[in-house]
Amino acid sequence: MTTGVRRRMGVDERRQQLIGVALELFSRRSPDEVSIDEIAAAAGISRPLVYHYFPGKLSLYEAALQRASDDLAERFVVAAEGSLGSRLLRVMRRFFDFVDDHGPGFAALMRGGPAVGSSTTNALIDGVRQAAYVQILSHMNIQNAPARLELMIRSWISLVESTALLWLDGRRVPRADLERQLVHDFAALAAVSAAYDEELSDLLRESLRGEPGDGPFSDLVVRLIALASPPAT
Amino acid sequence: MTTGVRRRMGVDERRQQLIGVALELFSRRSPDEVSIDEIAAAAGISRPLVYHYFPGKLSLYEAALQRASDDLAERFVVAAEGSLGSRLLRVMRRFFDFVDDHGPGFAALMRGGPAVGSSTTNALIDGVRQAAYVQILSHMNIQNAPARLELMIRSWISLVESTALLWLDGRRVPRADLERQLVHDFAALAAVSAAYDEELSDLLRESLRGEPGDGPFSDLVVRLIALASPPAT
Repeated sequence: MTTGVRRRMGVDERRQQLIGVALELFSRRSPDEVSIDEIAAAAGISRPLVYHYFPGKLSLYEAALQRASDDLAERFVVAAEGSLGSRLLRVMRRFFDFVDDHGPGFAALMRGGPAVGSSTTNALIDGVRQAAYVQILSHMNIQNAPARLELMIRSWISLVESTALLWLDGRRVPRADLERQLVHDFAALAAVSAAYDEELSDLLRESLRGEPGDGPFSDLVVRLIALASPPAT
Repeated sequence: MTTGVRRRMGVDERRQQLIGVALELFSRRSPDEVSIDEIAAAAGISRPLVYHYFPGKLSLYEAALQRASDDLAERFVVAAEGSLGSRLLRVMRRFFDFVDDHGPGFAALMRGGPAVGSSTTNALIDGVRQAAYVQILSHMNIQNAPARLELMIRSWISLVESTALLWLDGRRVPRADLERQLVHDFAALAAVSAAYDEELSDLLRESLRGEPGDGPFSDLVVRLIALASPPAT
């Protein structure tokens, strides 16, 4: 694998390269099945040199996971343009791109990878969920979410995770359908929540005011919100 | 703790007693914080005797988890009487009773308890999810679920889990509201799914035929299904 003539990398550059190589391997197969030898071979360096940079597979896994988490959190950041529905749809596309790219690693992580239950792993996963939550609130133009709305948005984020995980097992539903469906699920769950809370119903209507009539999404939102609201007086 | 005069228990009886005592302790506090000494004291026996029955805390934890899983799976079994909505509501009440009784232990388990990531733990959790799935299909009178319906039901089960978990953190929404809301979420998610699939839409309508008009649930179901369906010709 080595050419003999090889530019010597700096410490940080080498660490970054190893993280990239490891993330690639951890994404394509269950991390349990990836060995340090394989990572060393793919990086074109010796096994002892890998250990020079990372004390063990777990620390390399956690570093790769850190990079993947930063990437994933970034997927929830989209331009504040267009309707809430179209923004959520862009987010879903970016999220499923990630899931597509990192399928086996994502599944292994969420189902119990080598580091699951470790506080580092849990903190990374919670960080991504929190970033997603903050982004969605900001797209809804809401600063302080009432308890019910917070619960609804966080539940939807978990629905997105589990739907992706279930989808990876066989991919029996077209991905694009699921992306749209999850956006509609957001509207549906919001409407059900609003049916239990007038303040929330007003807040949602306010947040969706000016949602342009851009097809089935806003149509569904408007009809669902109306459905979940008390009749106009 | 011991009285000196104590009937000698049989091996199996003693094991069952220890599992019960451990489950009680693991439910009330995070299992990480429960020691074998405490379990021994609560059972009124010596620490070495606990080790005689269970080689370590993990095996006792797994046995307690097995009992809790059997109990939880059982909560999804309700009489095949009344509308789907009323059955799901009964299931949700029984599920939240369980969550109430085992709060800290449930949270620790789902967030990464001592045995998380172990294949035993994962198999137990998956077993409960599968039991819940089978029960719901049977209440819907459906034998072979199309891929979309399977995905929808399994996603809803995961929504129930995560909603309960989020709720436990502060209990800021009345429990009874959440139970009803999750039943409505089921209807809403089913309606969204049906909007993507005519076969599924027919199947759901068939499965909900004869749903009695017993208040807000069936009202919501009917209106949602209508909403998600193509206009009648």
